[in-house]
Amino acid sequence: MPSSVEIVEVGPRDGLQSWPDFVATADKIALIDRLADAGLRHFEASSFVSSRAVPQLADATSVLDGVRRRAGMRLSVLVPNLRGAEDAIAARADALVMFVSASESHNLKNVNRPRDGSLEGFRDIAAAARARGVPLHGAIATAFGCPFEGEVPVSEVVRIARHYADLGVRRITLGDTTGMATPRLVRERMRALRTELLDLPVALHFHNTRGMGLVNVAAGLEAGAAHFESAIGGLGGCPFAPGATGNVCTEDLVHFLHEEGVATGLDLDALIETARWFEGVLGAPLPGQVAKAGPRLARSDPGAVATATG
Amino acid sequence: MPSSVEIVEVGPRDGLQSWPDFVATADKIALIDRLADAGLRHFEASSFVSSRAVPQLADATSVLDGVRRRAGMRLSVLVPNLRGAEDAIAARADALVMFVSASESHNLKNVNRPRDGSLEGFRDIAAAARARGVPLHGAIATAFGCPFEGEVPVSEVVRIARHYADLGVRRITLGDTTGMATPRLVRERMRALRTELLDLPVALHFHNTRGMGLVNVAAGLEAGAAHFESAIGGLGGCPFAPGATGNVCTEDLVHFLHEEGVATGLDLDALIETARWFEGVLGAPLPGQVAKAGPRLARSDPGAVATATG
Repeated sequence: MPSSVEIVEVGPRDGLQSWPDFVATADKIALIDRLADAGLRHFEASSFVSSRAVPQLADATSVLDGVRRRAGMRLSVLVPNLRGAEDAIAARADALVMFVSASESHNLKNVNRPRDGSLEGFRDIAAAARARGVPLHGAIATAFGCPFEGEVPVSEVVRIARHYADLGVRRITLGDTTGMATPRLVRERMRALRTELLDLPVALHFHNTRGMGLVNVAAGLEAGAAHFESAIGGLGGCPFAPGATGNVCTEDLVHFLHEEGVATGLDLDALIETARWFEGVLGAPLPGQVAKAGPRLARSDPGAVATATG
Repeated sequence: MPSSVEIVEVGPRDGLQSWPDFVATADKIALIDRLADAGLRHFEASSFVSSRAVPQLADATSVLDGVRRRAGMRLSVLVPNLRGAEDAIAARADALVMFVSASESHNLKNVNRPRDGSLEGFRDIAAAARARGVPLHGAIATAFGCPFEGEVPVSEVVRIARHYADLGVRRITLGDTTGMATPRLVRERMRALRTELLDLPVALHFHNTRGMGLVNVAAGLEAGAAHFESAIGGLGGCPFAPGATGNVCTEDLVHFLHEEGVATGLDLDALIETARWFEGVLGAPLPGQVAKAGPRLARSDPGAVATATG
């Protein structure tokens, strides 16, 4: 197990993209600033996709412009094509994240293109990023299973990862888009990528759709992953669609990692405060548990607590 | 890792005891009967504590009387004292569960007695059970931490477990009463009990209060535990007290175990149906996730699903 890991906060992008009400740009900026105060340095801050497809993230440029940049901070953004990449570079994004699904039908549904069309388009993005010295990351959606096709062969994940490696990405992210990852699949995929890609860092991005977010993180840790993506409060999915639960919750993840003796450099109390504050901003409860219960050593007053016998 | 484990369903007891509205006896019986149809054989069916303290379980005798007994089925019940033990034996309970907290202040709060008073009282229960040939189990509450005292020394857990072993219990349960267990503590406590108690089976009873239910199960599996207590739907706590989340959810646990290749003998689809049915009985959503999202290979129709870009 690694003695420390890096948490990438994806709440502002993956967490918010399906939120039904538009979240004010100032609140998105304040969220990132507060999380940076809690120690977070790497954010997936927004997305330069079509604002028709994702109106919630239409303010990507303003968000990047408004966040207080600090030493070591990286604001990554999703880019679907050359146009998005150019806009992102102009907005001073610190890294560009390309994305493609490991399963054909999800990629068609998501970006209306076959996977090979997506991979082909990455060349222009990579060229633009190289020309401007902006780091590239490569994300693989449905990397642990596809809601339309079922199981996804590890060979497809490896094929796309190799393609990303050839384009010079600094990191690969395996995205568990609909919460289909299991510890077995995490171990299998990590092993295959380490064999194929040697030391290229792999970030793991889990959703807690079936309650397995943290067991998958634990499997990833044991397999040597040192980068995990999560969202404050467990943001993600849609609060009005029961079952569409969100990303692994940042403060729950940090609570777990600290209890396992894995350092994150983050201030758990500040994360909890931020999650509670952001619930107020959204006017809706979020699925994170530690923000509700408090850290495990938070003391209760016996006089104030009724415990039923047994 | 064991190739199979036993799940003990505690929903009818621990899951319901704090539920604010009285659940009809017929519904409690139907719950156990349906879960037995799904393959469950061991239940914590009710509690013979004072009906003033836990009015929800005042119908313990009627529940035991109404459940259709099947081959291999065991209906365990909690008993706080000799009177409860005698009532439970008269009601044809298949096993009696004694309980004491590992921390003094929780035991005082829970049963208004110091721990040593509880341990002393177990002698009469054990004598009554022995005389009637009814198996005894021993539960240790706050075994991973106390909401009033904080950390609980493993030596206290071992001391109580040894006491139980001397009384001839067939099983020890470590109860994570308020969701303070961590994988580290699970490994430490399992190791200590195996050293002290050799082959006496240890059951693990986790709450998902801080989202760590399944990572603790995973740690327990690796440490050799083969008995896990859980509640259908993740029943437990109070639906009106945010943060008072319940037991590890039976169907989420079974989904996880099956995906890890650990057999349970249970029918996951039938468990999911039962959880959904019981949400209707209670008129409230339960925290279990798999009943909302479906098993991981449940297919979606691309035409019916909107996926946002990325």
